[in-house]
Amino acid sequence: MSILEQIEQPTLLLDEAVAKQNIEKMNDKIKDAGVRFRPHFKTHQSAVIGEWFREKGVEKITASSVDMAEYFADHGWRDILIAISVNIRQQQRIEDLGRRIHLEVLVENPESVEALTNTTADVWIKVDTGARRTGIDWQNISQAYELVQEIKKHRNLSFRGLLTHSGNTYHCHSPQEIVLAFREGVDHINFLRDGLHQKGIEGIEVSVGDTPGCSLCDDFSGVDELRPGNFVFYDAQQFAAGVCREDQLAVAVACPVIATHPERNEVVVYGGAVHLSKDLLEVKGVPSYGLVAYPEGNRWGKPIEGAIVTSLTQEHGVLRFPADCNQKLIPGDLIFILPAHSCLAVYQLKEYLTTTGEIIHTMHENRS
Amino acid sequence: MSILEQIEQPTLLLDEAVAKQNIEKMNDKIKDAGVRFRPHFKTHQSAVIGEWFREKGVEKITASSVDMAEYFADHGWRDILIAISVNIRQQQRIEDLGRRIHLEVLVENPESVEALTNTTADVWIKVDTGARRTGIDWQNISQAYELVQEIKKHRNLSFRGLLTHSGNTYHCHSPQEIVLAFREGVDHINFLRDGLHQKGIEGIEVSVGDTPGCSLCDDFSGVDELRPGNFVFYDAQQFAAGVCREDQLAVAVACPVIATHPERNEVVVYGGAVHLSKDLLEVKGVPSYGLVAYPEGNRWGKPIEGAIVTSLTQEHGVLRFPADCNQKLIPGDLIFILPAHSCLAVYQLKEYLTTTGEIIHTMHENRS
Repeated sequence: MSILEQIEQPTLLLDEAVAKQNIEKMNDKIKDAGVRFRPHFKTHQSAVIGEWFREKGVEKITASSVDMAEYFADHGWRDILIAISVNIRQQQRIEDLGRRIHLEVLVENPESVEALTNTTADVWIKVDTGARRTGIDWQNISQAYELVQEIKKHRNLSFRGLLTHSGNTYHCHSPQEIVLAFREGVDHINFLRDGLHQKGIEGIEVSVGDTPGCSLCDDFSGVDELRPGNFVFYDAQQFAAGVCREDQLAVAVACPVIATHPERNEVVVYGGAVHLSKDLLEVKGVPSYGLVAYPEGNRWGKPIEGAIVTSLTQEHGVLRFPADCNQKLIPGDLIFILPAHSCLAVYQLKEYLTTTGEIIHTMHENRS
Repeated sequence: MSILEQIEQPTLLLDEAVAKQNIEKMNDKIKDAGVRFRPHFKTHQSAVIGEWFREKGVEKITASSVDMAEYFADHGWRDILIAISVNIRQQQRIEDLGRRIHLEVLVENPESVEALTNTTADVWIKVDTGARRTGIDWQNISQAYELVQEIKKHRNLSFRGLLTHSGNTYHCHSPQEIVLAFREGVDHINFLRDGLHQKGIEGIEVSVGDTPGCSLCDDFSGVDELRPGNFVFYDAQQFAAGVCREDQLAVAVACPVIATHPERNEVVVYGGAVHLSKDLLEVKGVPSYGLVAYPEGNRWGKPIEGAIVTSLTQEHGVLRFPADCNQKLIPGDLIFILPAHSCLAVYQLKEYLTTTGEIIHTMHENRS
């Protein structure tokens, strides 16, 4: 009996073997390049999956929130970087974490340095290398220099270096563009490193992280630490951008078919915004909330060419198939959606069912 | 001391008095029209807030999933309609619910009727009156007639009537358009009712539900039951469409400022896709994930004219202010985002903090 027969409602199916291969491959690649690997755990959000990294020798990790850092600290991780600029309102919890583990934090303004007065932590400066989300502009050497001076006023804080997310690789449309954008980000952050060095600051490290760049680039010169996260599962956005192969996709959301509309080549599933989130990708120029695949054995098959998720409301998803694909789905069948953005789908669904039938929890409570 | 000072991370603030006024107003309006009120609880998702409806005499409710129906059944609700077409894979749980409460379900194909063989329930046929999400086309009398015959084969099932969501009112751009779209939907479903009646089917009820139509329309002729849900809090989408006044908005998400970029009139907050979801509205033709408001007393003030939420990543939100608005936010301040879609923000944040300082839980576990 296929594991799929037990699925009653939208379920995040995980191919453990694929995820473990993804971990091994990235771990080997980064270690072979002589760079420190500090994987971001915001994608899998799970202590159990964290252990798959530990088995490969990983001891340093990245978290996206204080909540997440506390969760992984509770599960034995002793070296955690919180990769969001310090939220002053969580000052007390950050202080407490700094007493429990080797904590690394991110700052981009003097107010947040001030808030760390009683925290023991290594401190990175968040640098904007071009993504324009946040951070100190890579060309603004004087602003960065002043911030280093602020950090150095605090004996409990240790200035570590410059950190960027290279989020602009997510806006690229080809592997070639991604490699260029990644290297450009590295060049920009090194421009700032050199500028600070010329002002007399020593031992400045560089931390960079993004799955597209780490997956496609082989030149990690100028980088001391890499923090990719999404690569553990990849997702439809990464696949569409040429970042991963189809056989590296490790999660998909199984959704029950509740209605069929053959006259417009559409199928309606129980599976909506609360299960998948509303991130998009483009399939042949058409926006879609994910890729679509039929069940195959205990998992999903290849994405169906041209099939898209046209709408997601709270609990419903509408899938549209190409006119010539002759799909025969009936109510009660299962169909898979490969989510546009796996990190968000994990957050929404809160637990995994593996293709071998095990439940894996995340830091969020499971729903039942 | 303002209740806002205790907020450390993205928090769903609820003005209880406003929500109660919204409930009272809608309850009075629908009862005065002589129509049955079966509010949809998918917006607030909370047993505590359900009691605010019960105080007004509400006993019949709508849920958007089996999970939600079970939760409210556990909290003393004895008459629940599950307003998503039957998911055959949840057959057993639907049967169990039918034994516990007066259950009403939705079907649109013979397979799902067959799956109800052992369920005691009232059954509605899901009708597509023009929204093109799902349901039997309102012009397809013969298909609806055949489905009624299928239902009538089962002695445990009682055919109740025709149900539609009128989801097309969500695509309207003015109150006038909404009223027209609502009435058009009612006309369409009554066309089908008349057609079935002419084929000899008696006692067919009509159930319609959507917050825009119920808020703006005064003519409920041709309708036996109304199922709005969002009106309890409304949201930025409803406000932008002219469905509610600004003083009827009952929830907003308080977000800590973590960085400021005055050179581009932007502020970065801790508050992202995992807190707000990624639904959009348009502010003066520009897409935004919500409206923006400053704190005022124990709650939020008026939406800031022209301020938008330009991007939401996993944990970060980027707010852009009009060049002339002279905002003075600094890291550590709070700013409010009035979410585009309150139902999804509630799902994301899982609990409320009221403006009087109480925590209200939803059916989802709270995060701490």
